[in-house]
Amino acid sequence: VVSPDVLPDRRVTFRLLAPKAAEVTLTGEFLPASADSSGPPSLIRMTKGADGLWTTTVGPVEPETYHYHFTVDGVRTLDPGNPDLKTGSTPATIMNVLVVPGDQPAFYDGRAVPHGEIRTHWYESTSLGTLRRMTVYVPPGYDRSPATRYPVLYLLHGANADETAWTRFGRVNLILDNLLADKRAVPFVVVMPFGYGVPPMGTGVQAQNTAKFSEDLRQDVLPFVEGRYRVHADRDHRAIAGLSMGGGQALSIGLNHLELFSHVAGFSAALGSANDFSKPYASLIANAAASNRTLRLLWVGCGTSDSLFGASKNFSTFLNEHRITHVFRATDGAHTWMVWRRYLNELAPMLFR
Amino acid sequence: VVSPDVLPDRRVTFRLLAPKAAEVTLTGEFLPASADSSGPPSLIRMTKGADGLWTTTVGPVEPETYHYHFTVDGVRTLDPGNPDLKTGSTPATIMNVLVVPGDQPAFYDGRAVPHGEIRTHWYESTSLGTLRRMTVYVPPGYDRSPATRYPVLYLLHGANADETAWTRFGRVNLILDNLLADKRAVPFVVVMPFGYGVPPMGTGVQAQNTAKFSEDLRQDVLPFVEGRYRVHADRDHRAIAGLSMGGGQALSIGLNHLELFSHVAGFSAALGSANDFSKPYASLIANAAASNRTLRLLWVGCGTSDSLFGASKNFSTFLNEHRITHVFRATDGAHTWMVWRRYLNELAPMLFR
Repeated sequence: VVSPDVLPDRRVTFRLLAPKAAEVTLTGEFLPASADSSGPPSLIRMTKGADGLWTTTVGPVEPETYHYHFTVDGVRTLDPGNPDLKTGSTPATIMNVLVVPGDQPAFYDGRAVPHGEIRTHWYESTSLGTLRRMTVYVPPGYDRSPATRYPVLYLLHGANADETAWTRFGRVNLILDNLLADKRAVPFVVVMPFGYGVPPMGTGVQAQNTAKFSEDLRQDVLPFVEGRYRVHADRDHRAIAGLSMGGGQALSIGLNHLELFSHVAGFSAALGSANDFSKPYASLIANAAASNRTLRLLWVGCGTSDSLFGASKNFSTFLNEHRITHVFRATDGAHTWMVWRRYLNELAPMLFR
Repeated sequence: VVSPDVLPDRRVTFRLLAPKAAEVTLTGEFLPASADSSGPPSLIRMTKGADGLWTTTVGPVEPETYHYHFTVDGVRTLDPGNPDLKTGSTPATIMNVLVVPGDQPAFYDGRAVPHGEIRTHWYESTSLGTLRRMTVYVPPGYDRSPATRYPVLYLLHGANADETAWTRFGRVNLILDNLLADKRAVPFVVVMPFGYGVPPMGTGVQAQNTAKFSEDLRQDVLPFVEGRYRVHADRDHRAIAGLSMGGGQALSIGLNHLELFSHVAGFSAALGSANDFSKPYASLIANAAASNRTLRLLWVGCGTSDSLFGASKNFSTFLNEHRITHVFRATDGAHTWMVWRRYLNELAPMLFR
């Protein structure tokens, strides 16, 4: 059973052999987003053939890398024809991957250009008392340039993910390799820590989680990186960005620690339930002119189909009210890796210029 | 729905909510292996409750890390309660992970000891004309010991896997970190290349695949590693080992290139369909005394419940007939990562002594 089957006109056929099933549906990021992306995603009911083979054809679909899954009689089921998986720390975050290739390599595809490396470290977090991992990208030529020091982007993952998400699904290394080959960015190191400071998020623990993670980041991750890598250990050469939960963390930690970071970005940020940002961002707005002189870049972006769009928009309004200079990007898209890869590709050329 | 649920006495309850299903079975490595592991694995039929919740309880189960999956009305289904997955390049190689903890950390668990790093490289294979990846483990302190050169173990994955398998499922870094902390091994670098030279294996392409992969290994991987890492670039300091398909490759490439490798090991090796080893290993047996002087270690191991056991046993018999000194280990176990982690833990202390 071939599934997914990408046809020459970029329509895609999905197939599942399930003779005993009464209903099979397909859910995928290539389907039109529902009006409210916090609600159930769009579904397509698949059609059963006489042989027990369920099929549906969608598209033509724009060239992209999408996530999808089946539901068989109410049981969430991965496509058994497709071993390419997007993993996560909860069942709802595990999906199949559909790649619809374009005529040219995408900005996140591997090309015949110089390549950086990805390094995985295990370290003892003294602030949290546990063994943790971090992922580090070093740009092409890092080991052959012993006299060069680099700036650092701290790049945070979202909820139900980990320190491997940005390399596995975000393609951070290939995006940066390509930008560097095209001379569209300056070389920098990317550090991707594990963003949970307390056991996985429930209602109301985001603030506590961010506080604990902030300790690990500032007291363990930064010293580890600055002791092991040839990086500039000053605020002018540190950026912090993240997506969703990590977007909220990047804005909260970055904007409350301008002594540590000069570039701050939130992608589809989870900004918490507070409508009033003046208390959590009190130090930022206390002296807007001083903050604006110190901040080299503040970037906030969200897809307009994302249920978190309102939060980013409110945050931008809050920043405007307090005359904090920033970039606000309202783009197409929902709460997906498609959006976050594009944001990284847009942000990276603006860093450390 | 909590699944899997490891009880205090190490029995394990599995649960799946599937009200419309007529049959749900559980397949797992903790079940008794069927007599012939090439046949269908042992199954347990789960029991349906009035609420549509299917359950079964197994064990007590020995502390280990196991793989399992469900089958719902004939459709292979992952446990939707368990996001911990063992991935692979075919649907049949994707399983859920069950961890049954023991009273002490396992030899492959992370401990509070110095940790090495894992590095991922993208490189252009000139012999194959494609962009490929390799994974490299460097032992603790590698970057802080600029005067030290290390030996290298080339460690190969099995069929339907890739260059990430040994770190993700084989825990090579944690096993070696622990052995080093316990002073049971000497430090060495481990290089884990991608083992396919031709598109995924079908019947009859193993020999061709090994030939193409051998080109990539000798003409691209070795020079890349020896140009980038502080390693000894001589046969005394090179070992090659692998599991299953990679075990066959390690034996074939290693024993036909004693000018490159001094230590050679096959774990549950896929040795091809040939019953006559004299042709593919002609150079090894041509002068047994010379081969024995040159080979510092030849290690062949297989689980007795593995359908490939006979091949390893025949190979050992062949080596004995030709008076080639080697270690033959017939152990408990089938064709599983449990066996391969133990083999690595047994082999590593024997390398480069």
